Amino acid sequence: MTKTLAFVLYPGITPLDLVGPLQVLSALAQIDPSFEVVVVGKGLTPLSTDTPLKLTPSHTFGQVAESFALIVPGGTEPTLAALADEPLLEWIRQVARTAEVVGSVCTGSLILGAAGLLYGRRATTHWGFRDLLAKFGATPVAERWVQDGPVLTAAGVSAGIDMALHLVERLAGEQTARMVQLLIEYDPQPPLGGIDWRSADLDFFKPHARTMVESALAGHPALLARMTT
Amino acid sequence: MTKTLAFVLYPGITPLDLVGPLQVLSALAQIDPSFEVVVVGKGLTPLSTDTPLKLTPSHTFGQVAESFALIVPGGTEPTLAALADEPLLEWIRQVARTAEVVGSVCTGSLILGAAGLLYGRRATTHWGFRDLLAKFGATPVAERWVQDGPVLTAAGVSAGIDMALHLVERLAGEQTARMVQLLIEYDPQPPLGGIDWRSADLDFFKPHARTMVESALAGHPALLARMTT
Repeated sequence: MTKTLAFVLYPGITPLDLVGPLQVLSALAQIDPSFEVVVVGKGLTPLSTDTPLKLTPSHTFGQVAESFALIVPGGTEPTLAALADEPLLEWIRQVARTAEVVGSVCTGSLILGAAGLLYGRRATTHWGFRDLLAKFGATPVAERWVQDGPVLTAAGVSAGIDMALHLVERLAGEQTARMVQLLIEYDPQPPLGGIDWRSADLDFFKPHARTMVESALAGHPALLARMTT
Repeated sequence: MTKTLAFVLYPGITPLDLVGPLQVLSALAQIDPSFEVVVVGKGLTPLSTDTPLKLTPSHTFGQVAESFALIVPGGTEPTLAALADEPLLEWIRQVARTAEVVGSVCTGSLILGAAGLLYGRRATTHWGFRDLLAKFGATPVAERWVQDGPVLTAAGVSAGIDMALHLVERLAGEQTARMVQLLIEYDPQPPLGGIDWRSADLDFFKPHARTMVESALAGHPALLARMTT
């Protein structure tokens, strides 16, 4: 039986959160047809992102009732607004009930949290929002990706590529993971090297994150209070 | 005056080719409003990709007559078919005439080649198509990204992220490049390490590449002959 790998799409996401792991898992599906990839949204109209590009899903929530794996991408303020998007959360809860992998990239893990799927789990997210995971009963972890039971969360944006390659290795073995890595030529050479976390100024982001939460959830005082106290 | 950074969109691309550098340069535009990012296509309808996701440009060819930078993403067979897409090539030639940066990711460099922009230039592309660069008068180079005059070409798929960070450093300095890298949390940790090029079997791809070229250009015998002899 075909194993479905479903990405969720909602308005305003950071497209690299989705497209990094989508490209990796689409390569897996190309190599091994026992996997198929879908991108699922409320409807089939193009959705804005935090770039000028618009993205259109391949399936609607109504068309995908269950999935082997589920991956939720993140973003900035629109993702925080999605924490109050009950139809989105309800579809995620429904699919997560039987999914073997419940995944996220970046602040997508906050949506998993809002759906009630992170209680007692170790999880990660973008460094600028990591503290918020605790609001949903999760234990925030500063790792590139974190596996806890079925829950697989990645750090910010580009971390979804690493997480997806890890998932390919787990689902299809090391040889296939190496083939996927070769096909997408993932041999990273950041011009300035990796991030030097000790010298990076992370505190500057705190007021921005706070402002985004307050703006995104202004119409949802109970959730806003939960996120800010 | 605002500097426009234009990505070209055409049917069937590998979306990570576009979205990697798009996310990087959109972060630059967010930090420094003297830059703006656009995604340009023939029309404004959603276009298929080599994944289930569809992508929609923000502008049409007619709306963007010139640009500070131009970046062409690649793909597999549909990109090879685009080597014969004269309206696409003509728009690229027109914008390249005054652009300070003429860039590509993956097999997007073959499109630059077909547009006549690589004569006498050092350039790169996806490892599986590198030999084809010589058909357009370019010198193929096995590097993550290659700068030669205004021409900036990246290796396959994920290499566009590294190339775009290099471009940010060049346009806006090291501090801004580090900030962009931090915002997209680009601290890569490939689970199996980088690609071990010495042990990788690359020859298996040759017949696939050949088949793709033959299939994509079946209706264009002169170009097909140029690409295969």
